[in-house]
Amino acid sequence: MKTLVFGHKNPDTDTITSAIVYASLKQQMGLDAEAIRLGEVNGETAYALEYFNVEAPRFVERVAEEAKDVILVDHNEPLQSANDIDQVRIVEVVDHHRISGFQTAEPLYYRAEPVGCTATILNKLFKEHGVEVSKVNAGLMLSAIISDSLLFQSPTCTEEDKAAAAELAAIAEVDVNEYGLAMLKAGASLAGKTAKELISIDAKEFSMGVHRVEIAQINTVDVQEVLALRSELLAEMTTSVSEKNLDLFLLVITDIIKSDSTGLVLGLSEDKAAKAFEQNIIDQVIPLPGVVSRKKQVVPVLTEVLG
Amino acid sequence: MKTLVFGHKNPDTDTITSAIVYASLKQQMGLDAEAIRLGEVNGETAYALEYFNVEAPRFVERVAEEAKDVILVDHNEPLQSANDIDQVRIVEVVDHHRISGFQTAEPLYYRAEPVGCTATILNKLFKEHGVEVSKVNAGLMLSAIISDSLLFQSPTCTEEDKAAAAELAAIAEVDVNEYGLAMLKAGASLAGKTAKELISIDAKEFSMGVHRVEIAQINTVDVQEVLALRSELLAEMTTSVSEKNLDLFLLVITDIIKSDSTGLVLGLSEDKAAKAFEQNIIDQVIPLPGVVSRKKQVVPVLTEVLG
Repeated sequence: MKTLVFGHKNPDTDTITSAIVYASLKQQMGLDAEAIRLGEVNGETAYALEYFNVEAPRFVERVAEEAKDVILVDHNEPLQSANDIDQVRIVEVVDHHRISGFQTAEPLYYRAEPVGCTATILNKLFKEHGVEVSKVNAGLMLSAIISDSLLFQSPTCTEEDKAAAAELAAIAEVDVNEYGLAMLKAGASLAGKTAKELISIDAKEFSMGVHRVEIAQINTVDVQEVLALRSELLAEMTTSVSEKNLDLFLLVITDIIKSDSTGLVLGLSEDKAAKAFEQNIIDQVIPLPGVVSRKKQVVPVLTEVLG
Repeated sequence: MKTLVFGHKNPDTDTITSAIVYASLKQQMGLDAEAIRLGEVNGETAYALEYFNVEAPRFVERVAEEAKDVILVDHNEPLQSANDIDQVRIVEVVDHHRISGFQTAEPLYYRAEPVGCTATILNKLFKEHGVEVSKVNAGLMLSAIISDSLLFQSPTCTEEDKAAAAELAAIAEVDVNEYGLAMLKAGASLAGKTAKELISIDAKEFSMGVHRVEIAQINTVDVQEVLALRSELLAEMTTSVSEKNLDLFLLVITDIIKSDSTGLVLGLSEDKAAKAFEQNIIDQVIPLPGVVSRKKQVVPVLTEVLG
């Protein structure tokens, strides 16, 4: 039986490419591994896959029907994983997020590092196992680092991420800035997307103490264009809050040029969000100056107040 | 402020030596780290420390009074850690156990591998960071591998543990079998120990679903000598069950020569323990044929039924 390798729901570039690249490494090490995905491929990731001529992994909804053993990349929290994750054995995790709600009955391989991108850790694993990085795998890992670090602008980006990107760009034979900007622009194009699609592109659920919180992020070059859809976005967020029984829904609209964000916020815990960020909420809008990283600048701040 | 490095409560040889050795590695990498311990040093560990002429780490009860950042070795479950672990930031974990109840607000370095001993992972970390292993550190890591694997007899022992032990023995300049047997014998000497001491030497608490379970282990060369104290042991276990509000207390008495165990079991969930091991409990005694590893042969089996 195959071991399935996958990242989180509402996959981004790091989640999709890390699944592909780590499955490839495990195959080269003799494991019968297959990369799969838990959701739609976004525009940015599609650009990267097409550029390096790689097919998207197969979509799988219920993993337990196909596998006994699974490997998680780029996530560990059950709310962000396959719905039936409790029915399979997690044999490995490679991740760069906080650890929360994660549980196993048996020892496993768990490799997390506080770097900007899962791909930066994967690049180390190739070295540790003495496996050469192919041009395609290098291109995919580079894409993940560019995506997660917003071309090295995010506060999550470390010296290790930059060094890995430089190494991988040489193998992939691309100009980092030129390729990176084109890829980010492909992802930031929101044209033709409905409000429902916009709040789902990059949404993650978190459990914080007794609270259930959804934090979605939209990368854009024009925040006003997104805010023009304010009422539609809030209507979709209201539906999500009631359907998923959320205490809080925060939509972070990030200007990837100015490295700044504006939030739309909804739910019974919205006063706590105001307190967490020390900002007033006016008409459900919360200013988030200097915020670009959900992981480093949003989740810990909310956890401090809600956790 | 120093970063404190420590293993679990009721420390064993892997926990004490891993704290010392990892603190030493971090110091050599420029971090102001100090190894501490959360409990008494047992006879086996004392033998190893004396042999390699190393002082035991300082005992600390409340870590938050001394540090903001801590590094956990050889454990991750809050019940097994410092009582005030929720008041400090866990910046790293190096471990070889299941993950359960572990939680952080921020990303961290987490390195777990399904090997027999934390020291086997530490030996890799020295290589990854290009730091040379000193004779003393080699001796301490070797002692941990011998202890956790019962001289390579435990089912938790992997080829990686054996290879690491061979490497480390060469650096430490000891004969593995001669040194290992002497160290294990020093730990297996139960002479003069009270029943209360015997059930605490190597006790760990686990949360399994809604159940709170304590599993203690005694290594001995004479199981009958321990069972002669049956009523005193059960009396102390009864006190523990009521004081700690346990659903189950399982004392695993392991014959390190025959690689076999006998259990004493107490608590409201004892019928579930009988079911888990498919054994009858007679006068609180449960046969555990072939069992030597709490981690691999006890915890998963009980978690399956109680978790």
